[in-house]
Amino acid sequence: MDEVADRSILAIDLGGTQIRAAHVSPDLTVSCRRAVETRDEEGVEAVIDRICATARAVLEDAQQAGLPDPVGIGISSPGPLDPWKGVVVAPPNLAGWRDVPLTARVEEAMGLPTYLERDTNAAVMSEWRFGAAKGADDVIYVTISTGIGGGVVVDGRPLIGKDGTAGEIGHITVDIDGPICGDGQPGHAEAIGSGRSIAREGRALLARGEAPGLAALAADAEVDAELVARAADEGDPACQRVLDRAWVAIGAMCAGLVNTLNPEVIVLGGSIGCNRPELPSAVRAEIDRRAFPAPARRVRVEMTKFAGDVSLIGLLPIVNERMTDPAYAKEQA
Amino acid sequence: MDEVADRSILAIDLGGTQIRAAHVSPDLTVSCRRAVETRDEEGVEAVIDRICATARAVLEDAQQAGLPDPVGIGISSPGPLDPWKGVVVAPPNLAGWRDVPLTARVEEAMGLPTYLERDTNAAVMSEWRFGAAKGADDVIYVTISTGIGGGVVVDGRPLIGKDGTAGEIGHITVDIDGPICGDGQPGHAEAIGSGRSIAREGRALLARGEAPGLAALAADAEVDAELVARAADEGDPACQRVLDRAWVAIGAMCAGLVNTLNPEVIVLGGSIGCNRPELPSAVRAEIDRRAFPAPARRVRVEMTKFAGDVSLIGLLPIVNERMTDPAYAKEQA
Repeated sequence: MDEVADRSILAIDLGGTQIRAAHVSPDLTVSCRRAVETRDEEGVEAVIDRICATARAVLEDAQQAGLPDPVGIGISSPGPLDPWKGVVVAPPNLAGWRDVPLTARVEEAMGLPTYLERDTNAAVMSEWRFGAAKGADDVIYVTISTGIGGGVVVDGRPLIGKDGTAGEIGHITVDIDGPICGDGQPGHAEAIGSGRSIAREGRALLARGEAPGLAALAADAEVDAELVARAADEGDPACQRVLDRAWVAIGAMCAGLVNTLNPEVIVLGGSIGCNRPELPSAVRAEIDRRAFPAPARRVRVEMTKFAGDVSLIGLLPIVNERMTDPAYAKEQA
Repeated sequence: MDEVADRSILAIDLGGTQIRAAHVSPDLTVSCRRAVETRDEEGVEAVIDRICATARAVLEDAQQAGLPDPVGIGISSPGPLDPWKGVVVAPPNLAGWRDVPLTARVEEAMGLPTYLERDTNAAVMSEWRFGAAKGADDVIYVTISTGIGGGVVVDGRPLIGKDGTAGEIGHITVDIDGPICGDGQPGHAEAIGSGRSIAREGRALLARGEAPGLAALAADAEVDAELVARAADEGDPACQRVLDRAWVAIGAMCAGLVNTLNPEVIVLGGSIGCNRPELPSAVRAEIDRRAFPAPARRVRVEMTKFAGDVSLIGLLPIVNERMTDPAYAKEQA
């Protein structure tokens, strides 16, 4: 279906920390990038204004550069959201966002048809159509950063679910008596394997005086997942155990998905997924340890081909295809 | 698609304990039932002979009863298997079965086109087309008996997977440091929630002298899951804890599936699933505790409508549809 992704779009990635926007061409060139801080603490209206201002700046840059005009706007955002209505429902990392009709608001301001998709669904679209999973029919994209999320393609079709929430794989229980997740629920993969959880465990080690390597680094920097990983890399055994445990949780989650979905490719991404070269083999080991032999042999574990652009590039086919899909028809086109 | 299921079939359910066969009519009447012991210890050939003899007996009974001749034969079997080639690959509870070309052998003996599907995939077909999940597009069937297995329908299509192993949900890890499963892998839902695991925990309680209620019952009977459940029902608190833990594991597994697939209905079946009336509400509680609010609200948890016939009735649409599906074309029809 690549042939329909033949017109440029304006892509916007709305995250808890940054709003990023760019012009994306059919040849997958990402240009005229802009990024601003989200600053959700200033309220929904201020963030929507910032989204539109950033989009306008990209449009102007693209015109000046002589790039083709975008036919539409794609926005990737944390879930939960309603992709059909273009409504951001209640993402935990966008404070105050409850049932915000984002595409209607952006469309009104920008005069271009606008479509919304979960960031991880845009990401799996990138890898499936153009990247590490190109040519496969059954694909799982796993993002590992502050949280853990996913996007799934089953038998050549993106898996959306009845409420648009399918693919929330970070909230699979892998440890029934395990730690509490950000959403207050126990034992999710995210509660052990995410950046937030690695940082939490690092801070707990510090509080107990059990991580001298981390303590030395923490004198000059905030304890986040990156710092825990650096301490592990520099030989702090307690920090290494935190990472090992995180990779086991992520691998066990993936092994369950291998048994459930029998996929061809698992693609790893996200700020942690992209930056820990040991992660694919750690996930591979847990799949071999915990999944049936046939689907374990079948599945490839790959790194993302698009790194930080993965949620922008996937919007290209999404916007182009939805413009002619009745399920996403605009009330007033 | 019900309109294609318009011709009677001969349905065979090959299990580790029993071979069951019957005539299944388009109105879902199951008649001329026969059942014999599988006795896999006598070897593959003996079991195939017994399958064919049982099938012949059903055919004769059906003719005598004036029922319409079956147009084909459907066989449900434990996995893993290759549904396209009709090959039973290596089911753990059929000793000695390795890459057995079952449909070719039965076809040759019986002179009727024969199709093979995993028992749980036949089961989800029953419930989705005719039973507790009729009218839904996204369905999970969960069988809880000696082991735990599943069948999945996604967006109106049965989920088979690249190797035909999709839906092996009992082997989802729910407890990363948990007990070892029958296949030697750690922490699967099956290793806590299955009949085999409940029996194992019951025997462990007895060995430690911690289950007086069970000990009294065990004087006259083998310790299996049913006996542990009976002891729990009669007030043995340690046995009750074993059951509670089993239901938590099954519920956590279901909650992960709710987050991954955002289904409309989960149907519970199997010899334990059918016989523990507390199970749907126990699963419901874990979904509410461990899944996102929107998909948790969406999903219904139901008991099977077909109980022990669930893997026979589902073969009716499977056989009728595969007879005209090129993916299942016979080499010499």
